[in-house]
Amino acid sequence: MLRLVLLAMLLAPAASLSAQNRKAPARPNPIQREYQAAADRIIAAAMADSAAWNKLAELTDGFGHRISGSESLEQAIDWILARMKSEGLENVRGEPAMVPRWVRGHEQAELLEPRYVKLPMLGLGQSVGTRRGGIQAEVLVVSSFDELKARAADARGKIVLFDVPFTGYGQTVRYRGVGAVEAAKVGAVAMLLRSVGPFGMRTPHTGSMQPYDSTVARIPGAAITMEDAAMLHRMQQRGQKIVVRLEMEAQMLPDVPSRNVVAELAGREKPAEVVVFGGHIDSWDVGTGAMDDAGGVVIAWEAVRLLQKLGLRPRRTIRVVGWTNEENGGRGGQAYRDAHRSELAGHVAAIESDGGTFKFRGFGFTGSDSAYAVIRQISKLLGPLGGDSATVGGGGADIGPIMALGVPGLSHNVDGTRYFWFHHTDADNVDKIDPRELAENVAAMAIMAYVLADLPTPLPRK
Amino acid sequence: MLRLVLLAMLLAPAASLSAQNRKAPARPNPIQREYQAAADRIIAAAMADSAAWNKLAELTDGFGHRISGSESLEQAIDWILARMKSEGLENVRGEPAMVPRWVRGHEQAELLEPRYVKLPMLGLGQSVGTRRGGIQAEVLVVSSFDELKARAADARGKIVLFDVPFTGYGQTVRYRGVGAVEAAKVGAVAMLLRSVGPFGMRTPHTGSMQPYDSTVARIPGAAITMEDAAMLHRMQQRGQKIVVRLEMEAQMLPDVPSRNVVAELAGREKPAEVVVFGGHIDSWDVGTGAMDDAGGVVIAWEAVRLLQKLGLRPRRTIRVVGWTNEENGGRGGQAYRDAHRSELAGHVAAIESDGGTFKFRGFGFTGSDSAYAVIRQISKLLGPLGGDSATVGGGGADIGPIMALGVPGLSHNVDGTRYFWFHHTDADNVDKIDPRELAENVAAMAIMAYVLADLPTPLPRK
Repeated sequence: MLRLVLLAMLLAPAASLSAQNRKAPARPNPIQREYQAAADRIIAAAMADSAAWNKLAELTDGFGHRISGSESLEQAIDWILARMKSEGLENVRGEPAMVPRWVRGHEQAELLEPRYVKLPMLGLGQSVGTRRGGIQAEVLVVSSFDELKARAADARGKIVLFDVPFTGYGQTVRYRGVGAVEAAKVGAVAMLLRSVGPFGMRTPHTGSMQPYDSTVARIPGAAITMEDAAMLHRMQQRGQKIVVRLEMEAQMLPDVPSRNVVAELAGREKPAEVVVFGGHIDSWDVGTGAMDDAGGVVIAWEAVRLLQKLGLRPRRTIRVVGWTNEENGGRGGQAYRDAHRSELAGHVAAIESDGGTFKFRGFGFTGSDSAYAVIRQISKLLGPLGGDSATVGGGGADIGPIMALGVPGLSHNVDGTRYFWFHHTDADNVDKIDPRELAENVAAMAIMAYVLADLPTPLPRK
Repeated sequence: MLRLVLLAMLLAPAASLSAQNRKAPARPNPIQREYQAAADRIIAAAMADSAAWNKLAELTDGFGHRISGSESLEQAIDWILARMKSEGLENVRGEPAMVPRWVRGHEQAELLEPRYVKLPMLGLGQSVGTRRGGIQAEVLVVSSFDELKARAADARGKIVLFDVPFTGYGQTVRYRGVGAVEAAKVGAVAMLLRSVGPFGMRTPHTGSMQPYDSTVARIPGAAITMEDAAMLHRMQQRGQKIVVRLEMEAQMLPDVPSRNVVAELAGREKPAEVVVFGGHIDSWDVGTGAMDDAGGVVIAWEAVRLLQKLGLRPRRTIRVVGWTNEENGGRGGQAYRDAHRSELAGHVAAIESDGGTFKFRGFGFTGSDSAYAVIRQISKLLGPLGGDSATVGGGGADIGPIMALGVPGLSHNVDGTRYFWFHHTDADNVDKIDPRELAENVAAMAIMAYVLADLPTPLPRK
């Protein structure tokens, strides 16, 4: 009883919201009637302490960033597997995946004219390096692919800088993806990019380039800060000659072995049927990859640990996966598909958390209409957490390969206001994450996975 | 007429606010009745274009940061003087001041245990360097001077890190000021500081230490990021041994000559009576010192240029000053006092802009009650700009020396929400400044200076 009273005190805001929800004119749907008690227990347990945040801090403080092919990634995987075993999770294992190994090496960019400025920069993933001693050339600044085409004659022999203000990740990231190829097509010797983000504090953002075009010269690509990109643009508008020296040792080494981290809460009735969820354990080689995406892994991991602790064993198996190599290859998601191909007919759903760890906003769903109706019913349990309406369209890079084979997919969605401030930067650290918001995300993922794994009939497929 | 229509379009929000102000039940005060027309003209002219922002961009892009003793500071001063002359400002000159020359040199901080992390850092102004090869020592993290005292026995031979969360500049900056002296008193070999600011993106903030205590060993002091300070603190709480290597070449060289930048709009009746205003032209040796404090200089400079352009020549002289060496010595303010000591009885008021360039919020005032009543009347002209109420308490580091001799002092106040995000960092750049807000500040400074310089009787002193 004391425990219940304490929980009630800890949970006052959530509990009162939950009560309001139940008082609302709409009658509880059948899933609410069946699972409300379990959901309340999950929420209470998730919000009772900062276990998820502490685990995320221990992981990211302990191992730092975790790019594919790095020692720190494999050491982090070892640590997670050991910890999962010590927690009594079931079927804990690393599942092998060969991953690419892109190595940044030393790199620097310097403005030489009109005045000397050391330009904070990050080479882009998959980029080639420069020749030893670097590339020194005049800079042509453009705002778009169209402008580059219009000024193609000016680009030959130059370093092209795309100074493209952030209008949305999907729109702006195209320049990171194919900027080097487009610049090479018009004879540029290197490509610089205004970092892809809406705000920075002289903060470069790295990220992948798309593969080089085999018919075009492979030129190096790097991101500079939005501040410096704007400054170089102003200098060009003033008619000043701009000269930059860019030096990058970046190179692609042979593939190396890595692992997907896997653990389970085995189903009590149909253990071969699976709800799989998680995030990716690799990161870029900057910051500590706390929100991208150690947080996604920890959210699912803590969700399973909570369910186990609460004795909430569902009919089907819940499997948490920390996929490897999301950032620069997607090999973890492919390896999961290949290793589990024969079981995929029994995969009820896949959920990915790879959009940050801010305030929970709900789940996005891709699947049949009848399944979406079920997801919407389950989401009504998530009102106290701030996201009781599921949206159409969900998935994730790591679950994409199995979704392509018919597995219904969900994305775990959070407030995205500041996500791209930190994305792929040195500032993606655990201190940006609120322990309470992280706990709410654990609760939401636990409830969604638990109900999906426990429903008498599995989520209908298309 | 076309010009008026265009101005009306550009100024729609300001003009409508101004209209509301005039419709308010309170009758216009005598100063409003006398100066409303001039104020409206000043606002219209300031808001008509982005001249102030463009000038600030040209200055900060062109010369970068401007620490006392640097070539870039003296080159920037030359450029400003030449530009002021070309604009036809009056009595343009550099007034000499000897300034200290603290030079950062190479510096780095590395976490060696429990794992290797390169720690972004900035040595603190006036700090000594380390011995060649650096200082390698265990770290003791404390949250306050009290905790340092309580753990004094643990501090001997260690690097003390003050991990003090930002609660307000005045409170938190004490640790930057005397942290090294306090740490040395208990036998520490170096002092690290959580950067003084409420938010960062792994961004170190530099700034001055107070002079060393001659009775205590001089140990080096440096700021690390708030992220890393918090991480080291967590590591200590986990019982981990923390070892840092700190290397700094910082040194103090002999004083060198610099200049205060001065230009005037000479008074039409009493040219020997003066309203002096401006900001400081030096900065820390990071970023481009755009809001700290090239912006303050440009605001006053543009204010004078506008008044001249509009033919608004007041009874007394308006003098814009870009003081040198505010950041690490205050020698510019002292030199101004010494050079103008005989005129100070005729200094009607001094206004400093050194709190940023965000949304205008009003002026703060230090002086007699009767003078404050006048300032409040003048402030009613500033309603359209967002700051029509003057507050008690104003001044600035550069005008402090003449305020101490009786000159009434005002501070130009702006929204401070984000100022300390950027303060003394690499991210203090012109792109953080909104052209419209900057223009509003120009208008506010021009109106306040113009009316103070034109009032039939000077501002009463205490």
